Amino acid sequence: MTIKLVGISKSSTTFTVIICLNELGLPYQLDTPVDFPADTKTEDYLANKHPFGKVPVLFDGDVKITESRAICRYLASKYQGQHNNTILIPNDVHKAGLVDQFISYQSFYYEPPVTQLLYQEPTFKQYHGKDSDPEVAKQAREEIVKVLDVYDRLLEGKEYLNGEYSLADLLHYPNTYYCYAFANHSDLWDKRPNVKKWWERLMNRDAWKKSLEDVKD
Amino acid sequence: MTIKLVGISKSSTTFTVIICLNELGLPYQLDTPVDFPADTKTEDYLANKHPFGKVPVLFDGDVKITESRAICRYLASKYQGQHNNTILIPNDVHKAGLVDQFISYQSFYYEPPVTQLLYQEPTFKQYHGKDSDPEVAKQAREEIVKVLDVYDRLLEGKEYLNGEYSLADLLHYPNTYYCYAFANHSDLWDKRPNVKKWWERLMNRDAWKKSLEDVKD
Repeated sequence: MTIKLVGISKSSTTFTVIICLNELGLPYQLDTPVDFPADTKTEDYLANKHPFGKVPVLFDGDVKITESRAICRYLASKYQGQHNNTILIPNDVHKAGLVDQFISYQSFYYEPPVTQLLYQEPTFKQYHGKDSDPEVAKQAREEIVKVLDVYDRLLEGKEYLNGEYSLADLLHYPNTYYCYAFANHSDLWDKRPNVKKWWERLMNRDAWKKSLEDVKD
Repeated sequence: MTIKLVGISKSSTTFTVIICLNELGLPYQLDTPVDFPADTKTEDYLANKHPFGKVPVLFDGDVKITESRAICRYLASKYQGQHNNTILIPNDVHKAGLVDQFISYQSFYYEPPVTQLLYQEPTFKQYHGKDSDPEVAKQAREEIVKVLDVYDRLLEGKEYLNGEYSLADLLHYPNTYYCYAFANHSDLWDKRPNVKKWWERLMNRDAWKKSLEDVKD
């Protein structure tokens, strides 16, 4: 049975799950709400898809899972190693713990200022409705500088955050890509040699290239 | 070898790991930085404990893991079922996926407004240094109302978020407790019958009672 993903390709969280599906070599069907976000706030959507009215939602046979991070963990736990050799969450308890700590760095140190910076770009105003604030953009850039300085040290001598590619790296894709593609902030990444090489490595992955094609209009 | 936890008992994230250790029946030694937070910003701490200068950090023999959520996952994966019957992350892939989605609700919908509300209380000023803002407190309360309304529906007919107790419930402890103990906001929880019963159930767990004793000065 085909995996069904409810979401919109322009949402970073839906995009994250698409990359995960492609990394694991899983075919899927994207089911895009016709009128977004209105269709995700209906009584039916809240009761049967996502109680907080969000995307993405995964349907895998009788299984329904919401929230991109939870969906990726579910997909990795159920399917990794079946269609290719990509392992997103190591079986080894210690290695998995280290992947989890990098996921936490992404969730709580990296993602918040990157999202805040993107929200100051006119392209993204349609998703949150607020005007740009140069002072907020400046503060976000300062915070990203601090985070990327740490990342540059952590990536010294390593191909990926935890050595081998994992879900921790994957979660960085959409919003970092948006900083390169739709905002004038790639200098922050490019100035740090280990971060730059890490990002180039991520950009070269086949699953990423396929995902980028998948989300093209 | 005794598990060593670097952190301070007044930090919600250290407290979270203490509850996790007690739920799993694991003895531990709390190693509190003498001068906090200054001691977590030294070159040595950043290089050998936490690269972002945070607590908690777990040392389990040769294994070091940072970040409370990652530490709890590691402890559950390695030790659950060994000292008692408490299972924080189910072995079943589907059940684990649902626990993960509730962890995501806690991380991204529940925790941010609760933290924001607590930060407006004078008791917590020492941890962030900013003055209270009644407008921010009002907005945070409004956001918590929306989140708890959803929780009240999700908890209908269930003892815990995913039916059985899990890491998802555990992560709600410290900041919710602070709302009851140090701030005048427990009405938000008490007004919602399923949320109220869930919280009372959590307050009655032996591991919680032991943890509360553990963090007393």
